Amino acid sequence: MGIIGKHSYRLENTPHIVSSACYVGDKEGKGPMREYFDKICKDDTLGLDSWEQAESRMFESAVRVALAKIGKQSDDLSCLLGGDLLNQIISAGYAAREIRAPFLGLYGACSTISEGLLVGGMLVDGGFLDLAACAASSHFSSAERQYRYPLEMGVQAVPTSQRTVTGAGSIIIKNSASMNDETDWFFKHIVITGGTIGSVEDYGITDANNMGAAMAPAASETICTHFRDYSSSPDDYDCIITGDLGNFGSDMLYELCKKEGYDIKEKHEDCGKMMFSEDQNVNCGASGCGCAATIVSGYFLPQIERGVYNKVLFLATGALLSPVSSLQGESIPSIAHAVVLEHV
Amino acid sequence: MGIIGKHSYRLENTPHIVSSACYVGDKEGKGPMREYFDKICKDDTLGLDSWEQAESRMFESAVRVALAKIGKQSDDLSCLLGGDLLNQIISAGYAAREIRAPFLGLYGACSTISEGLLVGGMLVDGGFLDLAACAASSHFSSAERQYRYPLEMGVQAVPTSQRTVTGAGSIIIKNSASMNDETDWFFKHIVITGGTIGSVEDYGITDANNMGAAMAPAASETICTHFRDYSSSPDDYDCIITGDLGNFGSDMLYELCKKEGYDIKEKHEDCGKMMFSEDQNVNCGASGCGCAATIVSGYFLPQIERGVYNKVLFLATGALLSPVSSLQGESIPSIAHAVVLEHV
Repeated sequence: MGIIGKHSYRLENTPHIVSSACYVGDKEGKGPMREYFDKICKDDTLGLDSWEQAESRMFESAVRVALAKIGKQSDDLSCLLGGDLLNQIISAGYAAREIRAPFLGLYGACSTISEGLLVGGMLVDGGFLDLAACAASSHFSSAERQYRYPLEMGVQAVPTSQRTVTGAGSIIIKNSASMNDETDWFFKHIVITGGTIGSVEDYGITDANNMGAAMAPAASETICTHFRDYSSSPDDYDCIITGDLGNFGSDMLYELCKKEGYDIKEKHEDCGKMMFSEDQNVNCGASGCGCAATIVSGYFLPQIERGVYNKVLFLATGALLSPVSSLQGESIPSIAHAVVLEHV
Repeated sequence: MGIIGKHSYRLENTPHIVSSACYVGDKEGKGPMREYFDKICKDDTLGLDSWEQAESRMFESAVRVALAKIGKQSDDLSCLLGGDLLNQIISAGYAAREIRAPFLGLYGACSTISEGLLVGGMLVDGGFLDLAACAASSHFSSAERQYRYPLEMGVQAVPTSQRTVTGAGSIIIKNSASMNDETDWFFKHIVITGGTIGSVEDYGITDANNMGAAMAPAASETICTHFRDYSSSPDDYDCIITGDLGNFGSDMLYELCKKEGYDIKEKHEDCGKMMFSEDQNVNCGASGCGCAATIVSGYFLPQIERGVYNKVLFLATGALLSPVSSLQGESIPSIAHAVVLEHV
């Protein structure tokens, strides 16, 4: 049995992460992480008719590029697991139509890439899938009109706001038992060894422009549950990576973890704080499914591959709101799923 | 390894389905299936402020009632897997906040309950979860304003339209290896033995009022892939149950399967055709996540428990459209996930 404690599990067959790819927009491509991305687009429509179509194309492209790096095609995939921020996850759905692999649609808002790694990891570990792709995307322009205001209105961003990343990331998981063939794997030294399934937390935040505050409680709950289930502590990890808490949410996370007896500040990195530089004027940082998906794919996985980090806890957080629930005055529940990634 | 063929798998530890519950609206409670539902509400707001809140409450209630039938509470759950039709699956998300179990948000439109059984079945079979709840919901009034027109406009339904079911269903899966305790399981004789993960199909249908036609190709593709992967045929099943193809979609399914060499008509039942009687004026039948979720929970599972059916193939189909993609002129891709349920 892989179950540990109440909400965690161990992957006894340690599936490998064998490839990844990421595709970002122009602004992301001018930020401090620019050298780590596979593709940067100058035109955020990619020449297509809508931002939604462009987002879907980026999703598809991230999956195809990750497969190409290991000489594989979509036909070799056992399953594609993924989602995005839009209504009825259309970016993922239309990309899956083009990719034509078995598809499991997931929705965890900005936590989607870690939900994908969590579910995909378990399904590969259990022998149900051989080669699985996990992917997630977001797009600044499609997300703004979905969740907030049409861009044409020119509404000014508030100080707690975060900018939705235009980008898509894809990570390929492979059953370790069947790796002894002649494929030249892009990554050879990264395995998923376990994780913790998040539950929905809600501290009553109703401001759709303050995602960090809404998501920090979920991150804290999942991190502390993980430490308790595994009888571990921040000392056991080289790095604890969150998805897109941003500046304000990260500070709130440190406080919440400290109350539970865990000081994580020195070990913590947040993709939402890494994506843009201060002079890019993004207030509290970056957000969106594409934020963690691109930075983990493009930056953290190569670091683990080279042994810069030997063991990390990666958890992306998602705010489970919709425009309908916001207008109806509901607060913003959130969730975070964690996976343990190790260098072997 | 549980993999069979390209897209199918076998569950070697045959997890048990140990309970289920379903909750429907007034119109559903006046239809031919009325005696099989656990709860029927007269007021489709349940006295709450919005239809969305009511749908979420029904989702939560379906999970709690299914747990109560086996003397369990939400705290006993290893995981809740589910989703619904609304933007960002808020019915499931807000229900998960109340239930407070680990939560995996899924999106497969009306295929969500079979996606839940498929993923939940594999995770229980692989030893990652012990007791998992799969649930899905839909609500006529929240779905109409989400996908088509506000009800207040009184737009007339077209002949190919199907009525979204107001209802929620929940199914509880248990690891078979840990069943030897003193719990009085509500179902003792139903196991999940395998399934087939669907891929996204699109025959170019653009009419959001003709879901059956959009979804039939996905159902046909998954059924035929399943037969090929398992080297089986319709003769190997007592019943092939689809979610909500309705009258038109079911006829289209027979034609598509026949072209592939499989005659399924005599073995086929469609939850969308069973929910309402002809004099209830619903055109091509019922649809929505709640359609298959309630009829499988309330009617088919008890039939399998009693041995009326010994082996069924259950697949719900989902149309992966959104209001945004419809307005942008995109066609409607669809998906179907299948699970094999057997009497033991």
